[in-house]
Amino acid sequence: MIPRYSRPEMTALWEPESKFRIWFEIEAHACDAQAELGVIPKEAAKAVWDRGNFEIDRIDEIERETKHDVIAFLTNLQEYVGDEARFVHQGMTSSDVLDTCLNVQLTKAADILLKDMDDLLAALKKKAYDHKDDVCVGRSHGIHAEPVTFGLKMAQAYAEFARNRERLVNARKDIATCAISGAVGTFANIDPYVEEHVAKKLGLEPEPISTQVIPRDRHAMFFATLGVIASSIERIAVEIRHLQRTEVLEAEEYFSKGQKGSSAMPHKRNPVLTENLTGLARLVRMATIPAMENVALWHERDISHSSVERGIGPDATITLDFALARLTSVIEKLVVYPDNMLNNMNKLGGLIHSQRVLLALTQAGVSREDAYRLVQRNAMVVWREGADFMELLKNDEEVTNALSHEKIEGVFDLEYHTKHVDTLFKRVFGE
Amino acid sequence: MIPRYSRPEMTALWEPESKFRIWFEIEAHACDAQAELGVIPKEAAKAVWDRGNFEIDRIDEIERETKHDVIAFLTNLQEYVGDEARFVHQGMTSSDVLDTCLNVQLTKAADILLKDMDDLLAALKKKAYDHKDDVCVGRSHGIHAEPVTFGLKMAQAYAEFARNRERLVNARKDIATCAISGAVGTFANIDPYVEEHVAKKLGLEPEPISTQVIPRDRHAMFFATLGVIASSIERIAVEIRHLQRTEVLEAEEYFSKGQKGSSAMPHKRNPVLTENLTGLARLVRMATIPAMENVALWHERDISHSSVERGIGPDATITLDFALARLTSVIEKLVVYPDNMLNNMNKLGGLIHSQRVLLALTQAGVSREDAYRLVQRNAMVVWREGADFMELLKNDEEVTNALSHEKIEGVFDLEYHTKHVDTLFKRVFGE
Amino acid sequence: MIPRYSRPEMTALWEPESKFRIWFEIEAHACDAQAELGVIPKEAAKAVWDRGNFEIDRIDEIERETKHDVIAFLTNLQEYVGDEARFVHQGMTSSDVLDTCLNVQLTKAADILLKDMDDLLAALKKKAYDHKDDVCVGRSHGIHAEPVTFGLKMAQAYAEFARNRERLVNARKDIATCAISGAVGTFANIDPYVEEHVAKKLGLEPEPISTQVIPRDRHAMFFATLGVIASSIERIAVEIRHLQRTEVLEAEEYFSKGQKGSSAMPHKRNPVLTENLTGLARLVRMATIPAMENVALWHERDISHSSVERGIGPDATITLDFALARLTSVIEKLVVYPDNMLNNMNKLGGLIHSQRVLLALTQAGVSREDAYRLVQRNAMVVWREGADFMELLKNDEEVTNALSHEKIEGVFDLEYHTKHVDTLFKRVFGE
Amino acid sequence: MIPRYSRPEMTALWEPESKFRIWFEIEAHACDAQAELGVIPKEAAKAVWDRGNFEIDRIDEIERETKHDVIAFLTNLQEYVGDEARFVHQGMTSSDVLDTCLNVQLTKAADILLKDMDDLLAALKKKAYDHKDDVCVGRSHGIHAEPVTFGLKMAQAYAEFARNRERLVNARKDIATCAISGAVGTFANIDPYVEEHVAKKLGLEPEPISTQVIPRDRHAMFFATLGVIASSIERIAVEIRHLQRTEVLEAEEYFSKGQKGSSAMPHKRNPVLTENLTGLARLVRMATIPAMENVALWHERDISHSSVERGIGPDATITLDFALARLTSVIEKLVVYPDNMLNNMNKLGGLIHSQRVLLALTQAGVSREDAYRLVQRNAMVVWREGADFMELLKNDEEVTNALSHEKIEGVFDLEYHTKHVDTLFKRVFGE
Repeated sequence: MIPRYSRPEMTALWEPESKFRIWFEIEAHACDAQAELGVIPKEAAKAVWDRGNFEIDRIDEIERETKHDVIAFLTNLQEYVGDEARFVHQGMTSSDVLDTCLNVQLTKAADILLKDMDDLLAALKKKAYDHKDDVCVGRSHGIHAEPVTFGLKMAQAYAEFARNRERLVNARKDIATCAISGAVGTFANIDPYVEEHVAKKLGLEPEPISTQVIPRDRHAMFFATLGVIASSIERIAVEIRHLQRTEVLEAEEYFSKGQKGSSAMPHKRNPVLTENLTGLARLVRMATIPAMENVALWHERDISHSSVERGIGPDATITLDFALARLTSVIEKLVVYPDNMLNNMNKLGGLIHSQRVLLALTQAGVSREDAYRLVQRNAMVVWREGADFMELLKNDEEVTNALSHEKIEGVFDLEYHTKHVDTLFKRVFGE
Repeated sequence: MIPRYSRPEMTALWEPESKFRIWFEIEAHACDAQAELGVIPKEAAKAVWDRGNFEIDRIDEIERETKHDVIAFLTNLQEYVGDEARFVHQGMTSSDVLDTCLNVQLTKAADILLKDMDDLLAALKKKAYDHKDDVCVGRSHGIHAEPVTFGLKMAQAYAEFARNRERLVNARKDIATCAISGAVGTFANIDPYVEEHVAKKLGLEPEPISTQVIPRDRHAMFFATLGVIASSIERIAVEIRHLQRTEVLEAEEYFSKGQKGSSAMPHKRNPVLTENLTGLARLVRMATIPAMENVALWHERDISHSSVERGIGPDATITLDFALARLTSVIEKLVVYPDNMLNNMNKLGGLIHSQRVLLALTQAGVSREDAYRLVQRNAMVVWREGADFMELLKNDEEVTNALSHEKIEGVFDLEYHTKHVDTLFKRVFGE
Repeated sequence: MIPRYSRPEMTALWEPESKFRIWFEIEAHACDAQAELGVIPKEAAKAVWDRGNFEIDRIDEIERETKHDVIAFLTNLQEYVGDEARFVHQGMTSSDVLDTCLNVQLTKAADILLKDMDDLLAALKKKAYDHKDDVCVGRSHGIHAEPVTFGLKMAQAYAEFARNRERLVNARKDIATCAISGAVGTFANIDPYVEEHVAKKLGLEPEPISTQVIPRDRHAMFFATLGVIASSIERIAVEIRHLQRTEVLEAEEYFSKGQKGSSAMPHKRNPVLTENLTGLARLVRMATIPAMENVALWHERDISHSSVERGIGPDATITLDFALARLTSVIEKLVVYPDNMLNNMNKLGGLIHSQRVLLALTQAGVSREDAYRLVQRNAMVVWREGADFMELLKNDEEVTNALSHEKIEGVFDLEYHTKHVDTLFKRVFGE
Repeated sequence: MIPRYSRPEMTALWEPESKFRIWFEIEAHACDAQAELGVIPKEAAKAVWDRGNFEIDRIDEIERETKHDVIAFLTNLQEYVGDEARFVHQGMTSSDVLDTCLNVQLTKAADILLKDMDDLLAALKKKAYDHKDDVCVGRSHGIHAEPVTFGLKMAQAYAEFARNRERLVNARKDIATCAISGAVGTFANIDPYVEEHVAKKLGLEPEPISTQVIPRDRHAMFFATLGVIASSIERIAVEIRHLQRTEVLEAEEYFSKGQKGSSAMPHKRNPVLTENLTGLARLVRMATIPAMENVALWHERDISHSSVERGIGPDATITLDFALARLTSVIEKLVVYPDNMLNNMNKLGGLIHSQRVLLALTQAGVSREDAYRLVQRNAMVVWREGADFMELLKNDEEVTNALSHEKIEGVFDLEYHTKHVDTLFKRVFGE
C-alpha cells in the first residue's frame, strides 16, 4: 500500500481493527448458531456478544509467543469474555475465521470498487454527451484515418467499463462465500447449520465444499478481473496522454492554480495523472499471476497463499480504488479542445476522405484494384508535397472520367461520418 | 504450439485453411446483407458464394508483395470470383474481417474447451462416487490433520471445475462479438445492418461500439480465464503427484505395459503426466499478462496486439485443450490404493483424533487452555516416541478425571469424520 | 513458434534433427571418455562414431511404445551401431543428455542473438552519426521540453543495447554448463572425468553440482535477460511509433513499393513494423515468469520444467532473434525528416527556452521563486494565445529590469543545447 | 510493504527521512561542484551544508499546493538556507535528484541483500558439512531414485545461492549510476563535471547517456534478478516442506516452546516458515513484469514508472531481505533426522540399487535391453508385493547366469553412492 495512492475507506477495510472486528462477528454468529443447536449454552453466546472485545496491541503481544494469530485473538477475547469463552470457536479451524474474513473484506472491497465504477461511468457518460458531436480525426497506428467524434471515444470507454462492472459483479460473486466447516472441511466437529447461519448474517453464500480453506481459484478469478479493469484504465489513460501531446493537444488534464509542471521548465503542463494511472495499472495487474500461483495449495491446504494475500489483498484493491477515483476526476475535469481537433483533422489536406473516394470510384464502376491505384497515387502526392487532395482528384483525368466534380465534392462531407453517432449512443447508453 | 501437446480438432481451428474459410464466410455474408440493402447487386453476392474460393499458397505469394494479408486474400478471391468481386469488402476495414474471425475462432475454441471440461467433470464425478467412502487422512501443511475421503477430494475438484466451466461460459460470451463497422467503427461507409446480419449468421452478437477493432478487454478476460482454469489443473496435478510419492502412494497414474520410467532405474513409475500438466499450466497462464498488455491500444487501434494473438491465440487454447484431455485421462485411469490410505492414516498412532479429544475435554468442562495443554503434552510424546495416543490418554490422570475410558475410545471412531460426506456430495452434485 | 516471426538459422536449432545430432554427440563423446577410462572397450566408442546414426520417424515410433524419448533414441541408435551400443549411455541418466543438449541449444541461440545485437548496434551507431547534429525537440510527458538531437536518441539506444549485450554474455555463461553426473548427480555410476571431457568437447563448463538436472535458476536468469532485451526493443519501437504519428512525422519506417497500408484507406503509411515489435516484446517477456516457476523442482528433480521449456525455449529465442533482426532493418532504413523536427520544435513560440530564461534571471540576482513566477506568467500567455515568448519577455518590465534585450536574445540560441553532443558520443562510442 | 515481513534496516532505507537525506546530499554535492566551476558562489555551497535541513511535514504541506515533490523539497530547503538557496538545483531537473536517489537506495538495498546472502551461504555451508555423509534417498518425480546425502542437498543450495550472489553483484552494478544531466540529458545547463563529482561522492558511476531519466532497462534487470533469487528461495523452501511431510519427516523446521501449530489440532508441527517463504517468493517475483513494462517510457521520459517504483522498490527489496533472513534462520535451526532418512531409503526393499544391477548385468555381457527387462521384472515384484529385491535377484536364474551371489551383494553397497561426495564438496566449496 502506497499512502499517496490510497483512499481512507478502502484502506480502513484492511486495517487490523476491521479484520478483528470481522473475526469477532464470525465467532459470535457461530456461537449463536451453536447455541441454537444446543451445542453450547445460550448464555455463552450471549456473553460473547455482551462482553466480547479485543485489543490489537494485546493480540500482537500474545501472538509473539504463540506464533499463531487466531489463537492470540481467541486468548485475548477470553480475557474480556471470561470463562464462557471456552465455547467460542468450538469445532472450527483457524481458516474458517481467516478465509471467511478475507472474503468479507474482498466483497466489501468489491462494493467500493463497484461504486467507483458507477462514478466513472457517470463521468464518462456526461463527457460523451457533452462532446457527442465534436468531430475529431480517428487514428489507427497513430496515423489519421477517418473522422470520429470525441463523444464516441467516451462512449467506447463507457461500454468498456460497463463490461468491467459486470465482470466485477461476477468476480464478487465468486469470492462471496463463507466456510465454517472445521479442520479439513468435513463438518466432523461442527454442524453445517453453523456455516449457513454465519454466511447469511454476513451476506455470503456457504462454500459448497471446502478443504481446510476456501478454494483459491475463486480469488485467482477475482484478482485477474481487477487486472483486466486496470488494463482498461491504462487504455483511457494512454488515450488522454496521446491527446495531450504538444503537437496534438485535443484534450488536457485540468491544471490547477499553483501546480508546477517542472522544476526546470515553468511552461510545462504534463499529463501526470494519466501517466500515473498507467503505472498504477501495472501495479494492479501484477497481482494476477501470484493469485493464480496460489491456487495449487498442497492437499487440504498449505499456507503459502497467506503472505501473498497479505500483500495483494490490500494493495490491488486500494490501488485500483484510487486509480478509478483518479480516472473519474480526470474525466470530469478534462479540458477538451474541439478547435484543435478540427485543425488537426485538416492537416492532411483531405486525405482522411480517401476511402470514400475509393468507394465512390468502385460504385462508379472502376475495379477495386484500379480505384485503389488512383486514390493512392493522388494521396501520395498530398503526403509528400502537402497539396490539397480534392484539387488533385479534380485534376486527375482517370478520376474525373468516373466522378463529376460535384460528386467529388460530396465525398468530402463531414456529416457523412457522424450519421451513426446516434445509433452508437443508443447501443451504448440504451437511450 | 508444441506438436506433442496438441490435439487435432483444436489445432485445425488455427490453421490457415480455417482462418481463410471464416474470412470467406464473413465477406460472403456481408455481401448478402449489402445486396439486401441494395448497396451491391444481388448477382454479385451470389457470385461470391458460387465461385468464391481461395488458395493458401497464392495468398502467401500476393502477401509477399502487398505486405497486407486481407488485401492478399481479397485479390486471390477476385481471381476466382472475377469482376463482381469488386463489390466484396465494400465499406469494410481489414479489422472487421480479422477481429470477427478471431472471435469466431475463440468461441469455437471455447466450445471445444467446454466439451473437454464436461468430460473432465464426468471423470471426476465417477471417481468421486467410486471412492466416496474410502477414508484417507486429510493433510494441512503436508502434515496429517483429520480424516477425509478420497471421494471428497474428487468432489472438491469437481466443484472447482464446475466453477471454471461457468467462468468459461462467461468468457466465451465476452468474445462472442462481431464487428463490421468500417474504418474507425463509425458505420460511415457501411450500414449497421450488415454487422447484425453477419453476427447472426456466425452465432455472434454485434459489438455495440468498436473503434477500428473489437476492444481487447474482452480478449484479456478470456485469456485470464484460461489462466485460472490452468491453475486449477495444476492444483489437481500437484495433488496426484503428492499422492504418488514413494512414501505415500495412495494413488498412482496408470502405467502402461511397455512404458519405461527411467533409462537408468527400471523400477521407477513416475507421475510424469501430472508433472507435465504442472508445466502446461504455466504455459497457459503466461498468456494472461500479454493479453492484458494488449488492451491499451493507441487511439482507434494499433496493431501491436496482432503478433501477441498469433502466439497466444493458438498456443493457450491448444495447450489447455490438451491439458484438460490429459487430466481427464489421468483421472479416469487413476489407480487408487485405499489400503495404503488407511496404513498412512494410522502411522501417527491416533494423533489425528487430537482435536476430538480437545473438544471432548472442553465439553466435559475443562478450560480451552487446559485442554489444549493436556492434548499437546500427550501428542508430543506420540510424536517423539511413536507411542499410541489412546493409551497415553487413558494413563493421563488429568485426562481421565474428565473423560472415562469409554468416552476416550468413542472419540477414536472414524465414522465420526465421514458423517457429512452425503451432505457434501449433495451440495456438489445436487443429488 | 510463429512461422512469420521466425528466421531459419534459429528455427533449425530447435528442430528434432539438431536435437538428436547433439544427443548423439553427447553420447559419443561420453563413450570416448569411458573408453579412455577403460570402462568400455575402445572399439565400442569407435563403433558409435563410425556407425552411429538415427532416424527421426523411427525414434518417434519407438517412443510411442516406450513413452520415453531418450530410451527411444538409444534403441534406434543401437539399430545402427549393433551390439556394441550396449556400452552407450553407461552410468548416465536421461537428464544428462537432455539438459546438456538444452544448454548447447541455448548457448548456440545466445550466439545468434549476440550476432543480432552486433548488427543492431552497428545500425544504431551509423544512424547516430548520420544524425548527430539534427536538432529535434526533447519531450518529457509527451510535452516539448528542450532541444536534443536525433543522433542522441540513437546513441541512447546504442548504450542501452550495449548493456543488453553484456547482460546476454552473462546469461550465456549462466547456461553454458554440462552435466554428466548420473541418476541423482552423485557420479556413483560414472566418473567425473566423463563430464569434463564432454563439456570440453561441447564448449561448456562442467556443472559443479547437479541433482539429476542442471539447476533451473540458470535458465530463469537466461529467460529473464531475454525479457529485459525485449523491453528495450519495445522502447525503441514505441519511440519510432511516436515519431511517425501524423502530427509529428519526424521519422518514418521505410515504406516499400507495392506495400499497402490499409485495405480501406490508400493514403496510409503505418508504423506496422514497430507496432509488431511492440507485440513481439510482450511475447518474449512472457517467458520470464514460467522460467522462474520452473526453478522450484521437487527434490532431485521433477519434469514439470520440460513442457515449459519445449515451449519457451524455441519461442522466446526465435521471436527475439526475429525481433532484433526486424529492429535492425527498421533502423537501417528509417526515413528521418530533420525539417519536420525543426518545424515541430518551433511550434511553441520559443517556450522550450523557458528554463534558460529562468537560469539567466536567477544568475542576474532574481530569487528562484520570483524567476519561476516571471517565466511561468509569460509562458502561460504563449501557451494560451500562441504568442512569441521572446517578444513577451522583452515587454515584461520585471524581466527587463534583470536582463537586457541582448541577453534575452542570447538565451534563445540553439547551439547552447548541443554543445555536449560530442561529450555524450565520446561516452557512448568511446571515440 | 507488509510490516510482519519486513526488517528495520531495509525498511528505514525507504522511509521519507532517508529519501530526503539523499536528496539533500545530491543537491549539496552538486553545489560544491558548481562552486568549484565558478558557476555559483563558494559561500552558497557552504551555506547549504551549514544550514541545509528539511522537515517532512512541511514538505508535504508545500507539495499539497505545488503538486511537485522536488519543488516542495527545495522550497523547504530554502526556508532553512535562506537567500543563498537560489543557487541550489541550478541547471538540474527533478529527475536528476529522483533517479540518482533511487539508485542510491537500490545500491544500499543490494548491499543489505548481499549481506543477507552471505549469512545464508554460511548457514548452508555449515549444514552441508554437518550432514555431509548423512545418506538419504534421492528422489526424482517424488519417487525414490538412488542415494545422495543431506550434505549434498545443502551444497547444491549453496552453489545456487553463490550464483545468485554473483548475479546480484552484476545487478547492483547495473543500477549504481548517477545522472545530473539537466532537463533532457544534454548537459545544456550544467557541466558534466557536476555529475562526475556527485557520482564519486555517492559511490556511483556517471550514467553515460541519460534522457531526462536514467534508462529503466537497468532497473528491469535489477528486479528480474531479485525474481530469480526469490525463485531459488522457493526451491529450498519447497524441499524442506517435502522433507517435513508426515510420511517423510527427514527434516523439520525448529518448533519453539509456546508455539502452536493449529488452533484445532494440538499435535501439529507445520512447516509454516517455508510455506511462508513460498508465498513471499511469489510476491518478490511479481515485481519483474512491471519493472520490464517500465522500460518503454515515451520519448525522453514519462512518469509512468514512478508509481510502479514507489510500490516495487520498497516491496520487493524489503520482502526479499526478510525472506533471505528467514531462510537463513530456518537453515540454521533446521532439525535433521538421519535415522528417518535411512528408514525411508530402505522402504523399497533395495529397489534403489536397480540401476547398479542393470550396469553389472551389462558389464557381465548381457545386452542392455535384456538387462533392463531382467531388472524391471524383479523390480515390479518388489513394487507390487513388497519383496526383497536382492533375494529375488538371487533366485532369478537369468540373473545368476550372469552375476554370482557375491557380485549381487556387492551391488547393494551404500558407499558406492557417496564416493564422490568429496569431489562435489571440493567443486562447491573449493576446499
